[in-house]
Amino acid sequence: MTVAIDADRFRRRFDEFNQIGATERGGVNRPALSDANERARDQLVEWFEEAGLTVRIDEMGNLFGRRDGADPDADPVLFGSHVDSQYNGGQYDGVIGVLGALEVIETLEDADIRTDRPLEVVSWSNEEGVRFQPDMLGSGVYTDVFDLEYAYERTDDDDLSFREELERIGYRGETPCEHDDLHSYYEMHVEQGPYLLENDCSVGVVEGVYGFSWMNVAFDGKADHAGPTPMHLRNDALVATSDVIQAVRRLTAVGGPDLVGTVGSVEVSPNSINVIPERVECTVDFRSYDNAVVDEAVAQIEREIAAAAEREGLEYELEEIMRVDADPFDDDCLERIEDAAQTVGAEYMRMTSGAGHDANYLNTICPTAMIFVPSEDGISHTEDEFTEWDDVVTGTNVLLHTVLASAGGDGR
Amino acid sequence: MTVAIDADRFRRRFDEFNQIGATERGGVNRPALSDANERARDQLVEWFEEAGLTVRIDEMGNLFGRRDGADPDADPVLFGSHVDSQYNGGQYDGVIGVLGALEVIETLEDADIRTDRPLEVVSWSNEEGVRFQPDMLGSGVYTDVFDLEYAYERTDDDDLSFREELERIGYRGETPCEHDDLHSYYEMHVEQGPYLLENDCSVGVVEGVYGFSWMNVAFDGKADHAGPTPMHLRNDALVATSDVIQAVRRLTAVGGPDLVGTVGSVEVSPNSINVIPERVECTVDFRSYDNAVVDEAVAQIEREIAAAAEREGLEYELEEIMRVDADPFDDDCLERIEDAAQTVGAEYMRMTSGAGHDANYLNTICPTAMIFVPSEDGISHTEDEFTEWDDVVTGTNVLLHTVLASAGGDGR
Repeated sequence: MTVAIDADRFRRRFDEFNQIGATERGGVNRPALSDANERARDQLVEWFEEAGLTVRIDEMGNLFGRRDGADPDADPVLFGSHVDSQYNGGQYDGVIGVLGALEVIETLEDADIRTDRPLEVVSWSNEEGVRFQPDMLGSGVYTDVFDLEYAYERTDDDDLSFREELERIGYRGETPCEHDDLHSYYEMHVEQGPYLLENDCSVGVVEGVYGFSWMNVAFDGKADHAGPTPMHLRNDALVATSDVIQAVRRLTAVGGPDLVGTVGSVEVSPNSINVIPERVECTVDFRSYDNAVVDEAVAQIEREIAAAAEREGLEYELEEIMRVDADPFDDDCLERIEDAAQTVGAEYMRMTSGAGHDANYLNTICPTAMIFVPSEDGISHTEDEFTEWDDVVTGTNVLLHTVLASAGGDGR
Repeated sequence: MTVAIDADRFRRRFDEFNQIGATERGGVNRPALSDANERARDQLVEWFEEAGLTVRIDEMGNLFGRRDGADPDADPVLFGSHVDSQYNGGQYDGVIGVLGALEVIETLEDADIRTDRPLEVVSWSNEEGVRFQPDMLGSGVYTDVFDLEYAYERTDDDDLSFREELERIGYRGETPCEHDDLHSYYEMHVEQGPYLLENDCSVGVVEGVYGFSWMNVAFDGKADHAGPTPMHLRNDALVATSDVIQAVRRLTAVGGPDLVGTVGSVEVSPNSINVIPERVECTVDFRSYDNAVVDEAVAQIEREIAAAAEREGLEYELEEIMRVDADPFDDDCLERIEDAAQTVGAEYMRMTSGAGHDANYLNTICPTAMIFVPSEDGISHTEDEFTEWDDVVTGTNVLLHTVLASAGGDGR
């Protein structure tokens, strides 16, 4: 019989953990470096140590728990996720990846399985990026994407720095935030989209993550009184903005089967019922797993923005503030996850991820792949986030056998 | 030779007055009951008294200056405007109507002209409504549109009440804020639109003011991650809002020759670059001099809003928060203004006003009409507001002869 996790133990731990920062509507409020995030970290350290892991905390507050392998010099297999949340976020996002990794360790302990390679469980700092931007800051410094000092100087809305808040909660560790050689990295996470449930699958084998473009757009027109100013003399920045919102929606219909596009933020000034909008700032977000599709969408929306400004007699500014290419994961890692899904008997499918994850940064330094479990109605980043526990268990068993296949030894 | 105002004296006074609360960019910042508004009032009181006017201040801070007529019991002719400004507003809006009225009085003094009817100059409190809503509060209480207590309880963004701020600047007067019988009311004001200059006219004989509808619209959709949420599962409140903005613009093209429509305010939540907008609140403003045109525009936009919500799978709320019918002024008053324009030799035209004025409320209690002078590029409510001084002078001479025709006596 194949080894399997203890679904009930995992559930009890999941429920206990999510009492920390619990919200009335059934979510959790544990943004990075908050008091609730501190208590969540304390709980992880306690459980990691109880499971026999050797805990170390690095300068970014990334939390590692190590279980030695039969070959102490072999490159370790790293797996985990994050436990910081959105403001009033859900119970599953990140949490199942960390507590699932801990459950894998306990399962190996119970079954007395020693792997060849060392195993390391990780909980990354500030994945969500809601309090300190940018997101994925802990894994970003770990993988040399960001400098440590840059990360330390990030501030929240109250002008508190990442460094001072990290020190305040007592999680500025001694270990340098830099990566050692790793055999591989795995992360189990909720899908945050609808495809697994639409395809009756419990597990997604994530081939890679969408590339994306983020743009800031600003239109400058002329504020004027909404009564006596005839339509032909208006330079209304909001009308041009509505052209952009419509164009983004239209482009997604023709730009490629997986292209998504969003105008998420609009700021109008002076924003008064009887004054023609003088200036509007908005954002555009385009994503696809095909970089050429993102390229083309960006080129098209640039033309749409210029044309909207021209039609309405406006000045405009356009800046692409971030551009990330699609990020394919490692073939060997993907095959191990597929093999594990077959071992476990899970219904699985290959898929891509529209959202970014710590795994993206890890993919730049070691072979990496992700395991998705379903999100009901595709909902995430809200308190309504939900995944059937059976699916979490299935995903964690896939993680278990993926790790075993990667780490080698008697559990294989 | 017909009597005429002293253009240079008026100009010197205009320039001196606009040093109060002057902004670097050439405008004025004298919102209602501000320190600058207090100094402007002090200056008016001083000049009114120097001109021989009997000053009285009512409970709303409306400032009256009376010049007795030959018949002390006759109903007076009232004329004036306001001196409160937008935040960083222009030099002309309201100011020329009050200082022009004062110039009319001084001209009569110099020419030793005694009218049959008493003349009263007025400067209304809080016309702009930028600090305390609603606008036209002083004339509104005077004409029984609002209760005094309602007006007193209006608060600004710092939660200071109209009453306490009025007391703070020392302009809560003793005179009850209620209207006596009036022969007529006249107000000279900048057009705030382009039509006079487009028609090479110095003076507009304002037949009445547009009716309007103000609506609050809210769409409720579903916040979700902008990456993994496919387009067909989105309920994006901002996409529906962009449909409304486009529909308002389209409706103005077909809804009637003078129909104007504006979406001036948009509030998006959560308003984040990578989150699909869950809720958007916006406003719609439709105006026309034809009430049926406003009716039809409101009916059409209601259908557009319902259809946009249906297309995007949203809930919506729609509330008409204000509806004011078009307000035709008094025919006799209009004829007096036309006669005066001919006396003065002014190029004039009949027109309507897209913006509301204190004259609207006065029109409910006595025969009323307005005189417009041109606004360069139709611009108002900004520091760039500009009117050629020759046009201000022409308009004031029209006011002078209109008042003389109304008040009777040897100046006729």
